[in-house]
Amino acid sequence: MTYFTKADIQAMDKSYRVNLVNSLTGFKSANLIGTQSPDKQTNLAIISSAFHLGADPALIGFINRPASVDRHTLDNLLATEYYTLNHVNTDIIKQAHQTSARYPKEESEFTATGLTECWIDGFEAPFVEQSLVRIGLKYVEHHTLLNNTVLVIGEIVLVDIPSTSIGVDGLVNIEQLNTVAVSGLDTYHDTSKITRLSYAKPRKKLQIIEE
Amino acid sequence: MTYFTKADIQAMDKSYRVNLVNSLTGFKSANLIGTQSPDKQTNLAIISSAFHLGADPALIGFINRPASVDRHTLDNLLATEYYTLNHVNTDIIKQAHQTSARYPKEESEFTATGLTECWIDGFEAPFVEQSLVRIGLKYVEHHTLLNNTVLVIGEIVLVDIPSTSIGVDGLVNIEQLNTVAVSGLDTYHDTSKITRLSYAKPRKKLQIIEE
Repeated sequence: MTYFTKADIQAMDKSYRVNLVNSLTGFKSANLIGTQSPDKQTNLAIISSAFHLGADPALIGFINRPASVDRHTLDNLLATEYYTLNHVNTDIIKQAHQTSARYPKEESEFTATGLTECWIDGFEAPFVEQSLVRIGLKYVEHHTLLNNTVLVIGEIVLVDIPSTSIGVDGLVNIEQLNTVAVSGLDTYHDTSKITRLSYAKPRKKLQIIEE
Repeated sequence: MTYFTKADIQAMDKSYRVNLVNSLTGFKSANLIGTQSPDKQTNLAIISSAFHLGADPALIGFINRPASVDRHTLDNLLATEYYTLNHVNTDIIKQAHQTSARYPKEESEFTATGLTECWIDGFEAPFVEQSLVRIGLKYVEHHTLLNNTVLVIGEIVLVDIPSTSIGVDGLVNIEQLNTVAVSGLDTYHDTSKITRLSYAKPRKKLQIIEE
């Protein structure tokens, strides 16, 4: 095993540190966040920081980088209050990754990467046509954190998924939908289900719900 | 495709809604969080909400459920300021899942599940012997969010990983270490790398760094 202390991490070359630290939390979700400015300019950005915050109300959080950079997404959703999350699947990894390039505000990442805007029921932000799990969110609150990153919280107001992927108990088979996982900054993985386990209780043997 | 609106989600059976909404962010990390109370009682809890917050300083966030329930982890880390994150790997899925059972405070999940405490360099919280990626954190701040969940932020002060898993550029091969990904509340997956892509720039073709 190798040990690193706080001082070792601070002394690392920046790029080495970024790769290492980004690996440490484990696998991450891969989503495209779609927004539109008040003057109808669309924006699309890949994020690996979306996380579940609660089911009732149904809330999702994500981390926006310091407000001094990459403001397009944050500016748009604060102005319009609406944004979308769209799962990255195995068919669109390259296009999704390419959205992380720093395009000028007047250039839409949809046009630049070849991903297709999809508008649902008058919802005021663009979904991604090629994505199979599309979520419409309404902004509810944000918190600026100690390193100037911004936690943005939204409530789920629209979900668009293939009906065949939803189990009888509500679980969505995101593996079957080819949703990918991310490690580090730039490595994409598909998955293979190992097991699904029952609700855990003290002194009760876990049951395998599905192999 | 199937559409759900906010009203549809609110009208769902609770268990169905919990399964559905927990699936919507994509794949999640799987970590065991280890703490110790001031009177030396250890605690271990599985979480799927750990996320990267920054590399310099090296910060990780996680979401603790509403402070009214499951207080052991939060109480301990606020009292001692130290806690650990340990990747769940394919060898310890059942033990890790079992830590989610509601054990009384005086019963350690280490003892109850058969996972082994591991103490490093006098660090004041227990690591998991069976985990191959172990991170020691010092509490820095927390935020109570609108649904009474608590975002806890810690700085990485110790990392313990197999040296052979670290690439020349700092990326950790967590797939080789059999770290698992989670979907929904209870489904565990291993992964298979698809590709690693170069840093994206406008009008520059992405390079595949590793297949």
